[in-house]
Amino acid sequence: MKYPDTIQKLIECFKKYPGVGSKTAERYALSTLDFNQEIINQFVQSLIDSKEKIKHCSICNNWSEDDICDICKDKNRNNDMLCVVEDPKSVILIEKLGIFNGYYYVINGLISPLEGINPEDIELDKLVDRVKNNNIKEVILAVKPSIEGETTSLYISKLLKDSDVIVSKIAHGVPIGTEIDYVDSLTLELALENRKEI
Amino acid sequence: MKYPDTIQKLIECFKKYPGVGSKTAERYALSTLDFNQEIINQFVQSLIDSKEKIKHCSICNNWSEDDICDICKDKNRNNDMLCVVEDPKSVILIEKLGIFNGYYYVINGLISPLEGINPEDIELDKLVDRVKNNNIKEVILAVKPSIEGETTSLYISKLLKDSDVIVSKIAHGVPIGTEIDYVDSLTLELALENRKEI
Repeated sequence: MKYPDTIQKLIECFKKYPGVGSKTAERYALSTLDFNQEIINQFVQSLIDSKEKIKHCSICNNWSEDDICDICKDKNRNNDMLCVVEDPKSVILIEKLGIFNGYYYVINGLISPLEGINPEDIELDKLVDRVKNNNIKEVILAVKPSIEGETTSLYISKLLKDSDVIVSKIAHGVPIGTEIDYVDSLTLELALENRKEI
Repeated sequence: MKYPDTIQKLIECFKKYPGVGSKTAERYALSTLDFNQEIINQFVQSLIDSKEKIKHCSICNNWSEDDICDICKDKNRNNDMLCVVEDPKSVILIEKLGIFNGYYYVINGLISPLEGINPEDIELDKLVDRVKNNNIKEVILAVKPSIEGETTSLYISKLLKDSDVIVSKIAHGVPIGTEIDYVDSLTLELALENRKEI
């Protein structure tokens, strides 16, 4: 027994999403059949727009529907601070906190010699110019604490060595609300090393 | 901080799916941005087709891309048996078992006086004619064991009282592999009542 072709194709589309297996994809496809024409039209238009309208900001590489993103357009932010992140999703995560008021720079990837991703493959080209020409005082590196993240952070700090700028890195340690037993040993080691006097 | 409009709209679309909250919808929307044009085109076409191509079989009300569904077209099935189900999804579930070789009849809903769904609101009209004119020997009612399901089963069995046909109902009881403690009391009661000599 097969589903009609259209339903089968819809299931295949949903299976491409992270964490969606056959059962969930079937559930989503069958729910789609219950949607009215208006919702289907909205969905279709959003999918088309996701390819046609979403570009990368020409200043910071963040997602944007215009040439320059809303954050880079905002003249009320603190021009002293630049936060370097791996992808546009990290921008959203940090913005949601509401505590950082500087600008961002998205490098779209991390250096990973094992996967053949070299420094020239990620978007570091505009970074040094931007730091130098915009009178930035601190560059905060907010990339994930993996080997690739550390390599990339180290590389960026070397690139900026000659600039008159503080390069900092977000703190790593035991997350709030976590039992210490559940934290991996590397995190615990870092948490011990970076202990703070109270 | 908001996502660009297009991403926000995509998130709203995903939130309409069962069990998808804000976090999951965001995750799906952001994954969509990583898809290539080909996958987006496939998805768009499947969504459009889901409204334009999927119809209900004129004989059994099952989903079909043609006027008559693949099951009703199949002349090799057993014409003695007709399985009555609530929705096309149940057809798929039973077909997947591979043990039923008769035909189906989808009533698309259950009688529910509380929700104002009366017998004339579900697709019972063609059922009696079909049973009488097709020499069907057994009608198996495979609807869910709720008040609505029981009401509907009772109504159908009354409709078919004058026809020379056996009306049966799928067995209810303790599911295989379940601890008896976890089964609700009504199911356990039914399981006891319907006990079988071994």
